[in-house]
Amino acid sequence: MSDRFQFSVSATDGHARTGVIQTPRGEIRTPAFMPVGTAATVKAMLPESVRATGADILLGNTYHLMLRPGAERIARLGGLHKFMNWQRPILTDSGGFQVMSLSSLRKLTEDGVTFASHVDGSRHFLSPETSMQIQRDLGSDIVMAFDECPALPATEDEVAKSMRMSMRWAQRSRDAFGDRPGHALFGIMQGGVTRDLREESAEALKGIGFDGYAIGGLAVGEGQEAMFSVLDYAPGFLPEDKPRYLMGVGKPDDIVGAVVRGVDMMDCVLPSRSGRTGQAWTRRGQVNIKNARHADDPRPLDADCTCPACTGYSRAYLHHVFRAQEMISGMLLTWHNLHYFQELMVGLREAIAAGQLAGFVTQFEAQRAQGDIDPL
Amino acid sequence: MSDRFQFSVSATDGHARTGVIQTPRGEIRTPAFMPVGTAATVKAMLPESVRATGADILLGNTYHLMLRPGAERIARLGGLHKFMNWQRPILTDSGGFQVMSLSSLRKLTEDGVTFASHVDGSRHFLSPETSMQIQRDLGSDIVMAFDECPALPATEDEVAKSMRMSMRWAQRSRDAFGDRPGHALFGIMQGGVTRDLREESAEALKGIGFDGYAIGGLAVGEGQEAMFSVLDYAPGFLPEDKPRYLMGVGKPDDIVGAVVRGVDMMDCVLPSRSGRTGQAWTRRGQVNIKNARHADDPRPLDADCTCPACTGYSRAYLHHVFRAQEMISGMLLTWHNLHYFQELMVGLREAIAAGQLAGFVTQFEAQRAQGDIDPL
Repeated sequence: MSDRFQFSVSATDGHARTGVIQTPRGEIRTPAFMPVGTAATVKAMLPESVRATGADILLGNTYHLMLRPGAERIARLGGLHKFMNWQRPILTDSGGFQVMSLSSLRKLTEDGVTFASHVDGSRHFLSPETSMQIQRDLGSDIVMAFDECPALPATEDEVAKSMRMSMRWAQRSRDAFGDRPGHALFGIMQGGVTRDLREESAEALKGIGFDGYAIGGLAVGEGQEAMFSVLDYAPGFLPEDKPRYLMGVGKPDDIVGAVVRGVDMMDCVLPSRSGRTGQAWTRRGQVNIKNARHADDPRPLDADCTCPACTGYSRAYLHHVFRAQEMISGMLLTWHNLHYFQELMVGLREAIAAGQLAGFVTQFEAQRAQGDIDPL
Repeated sequence: MSDRFQFSVSATDGHARTGVIQTPRGEIRTPAFMPVGTAATVKAMLPESVRATGADILLGNTYHLMLRPGAERIARLGGLHKFMNWQRPILTDSGGFQVMSLSSLRKLTEDGVTFASHVDGSRHFLSPETSMQIQRDLGSDIVMAFDECPALPATEDEVAKSMRMSMRWAQRSRDAFGDRPGHALFGIMQGGVTRDLREESAEALKGIGFDGYAIGGLAVGEGQEAMFSVLDYAPGFLPEDKPRYLMGVGKPDDIVGAVVRGVDMMDCVLPSRSGRTGQAWTRRGQVNIKNARHADDPRPLDADCTCPACTGYSRAYLHHVFRAQEMISGMLLTWHNLHYFQELMVGLREAIAAGQLAGFVTQFEAQRAQGDIDPL
């Protein structure tokens, strides 16, 4: 293992790249999908099970952890890795996005944002400097700059104004982060769906200099077509020798489209959230396990899948335990979904390495178009 | 593995015995604690994790399974073992107790009991004959005779009348069960806390002849002292060469007291139910993990415990995830509790085998008397 943070691309195929991020806590194979462990747990999973699905890195949410159990408490207890029993890399977001989507009584100034906790109503303040301190307390391996993501709909002027403040906050984040060997700081590109603003944001970030670059402000309701339009050019504004992280993405077809366009890292709550609501993702699309057609079906969710849900249980069982509101329902479906997402990443990495990404994408789309297996 | 059901005692210590029940699906080491998998799942656990705690056998609930997903459906799907992915022995109760405690609109006659499902209000009928058929559909290894457990408080006359009907039902259960090599039928002794009635019930059951004998109608609110009073004589009314099963017991000290008095098998929802409500059982007694004193405590629940909750996590983490209502809370505490209960059974079996049960009990009580570790 490397004692420092280092990214290397081993192969490209069109705009897509595959490679590895070396960190003191282990390698991250890219393109990477990062499961989300919001409150120091990937919901319904033990960390060893998350690892068994193939995850190299988890995402933790600064906003949730600062409110409960508190970043200083986690620091006293030895950091987030020890606290949640996950020794591999952790990326933490900056808290900016969750403050905007979850808290109340927000007051935003150039200095930062004050807000009321969604847990207990207590008042808090987040700024580039406090976010850097909290992420340091957590012991995060990849720290995200503190940014603002404007609520949609927003005019181009509002997006531009917000982006420019985020760029000033990016500089303050860089200054506050300091020099921390083995830890990385990523800047976040904003600019909505406006090419010039995206380019301006990228130039600002490159001028500051980061260990990696995120594409923020997408996957916030603009739709896949608009997102892909931005991804057709935005990754190209960023340095080739640093990882590119698309935040909050996504569905399997979003992931494939993003990787094709040059994205190296992604995160999303989708596989775990879907798992708790009876939604399974397979190579043949989405399956709603609560549908009555599964009640007598002895077949697995996906006969070719090697996850515990598919090797040990019938659709009839998965249907039954969902209907009976048993915890094993969320446990098995989350495991399956995370397994499928990681298998998808393995397929993408291998296809890029072999220079066969176009064929992989064709097969991926053909399998999805088949739809789920026919009812008995 | 034996192709038939066979019990052998390898050592005794006072009234306590240790031995093994051979079944075609594997050995059951006695004294045995059976985790409860009510609706075809031990709540919050994967079956391989239940096995990892040391469980040799699970209990399934006929009442719940007949209502959802239905015994005929489970039969079509290959039986309960395949359905829930547990290949080792399963004992099913007869449904009698749950009908009395969970259903509504009950009508009890000599023939059986009609009732309305607590799930959807649908009408059902259970009798010795239908209970035997359902347990056969489920594929249960150890089938329980269909009995009635009178609601408390009950007069001695009511208990006697109910017991005598249960004995007639025991004969009908025996007749309906037929000859099923490799599968066992257990009779259930009733008679409340009245010695003469217990003896009368035992004689009736022995006259019919069963592969094992349960002690029913205890752990229903009579208190430990009254239960132990019955256990001081009731096991002695039963054949020495057949397993004795105390239904629905219990807390760790109930288990120890029952084993000392000659009980070979027990079941209880306590370790799994407690696990979901933040209650942990350790050799030093009960720990309420939601208590604020754990919020900053870096120590494990039990430093000497080898379960995943104790080897991977602090009390502070367990406190946090319980407060945040994360599923991992129930998953880890249930695992710990089941692990502790099975460790207790290992200790009891080894102590009996070594002729040192009295010393084991003294140490067990001394550790409990210490109480939980001091706050930091």
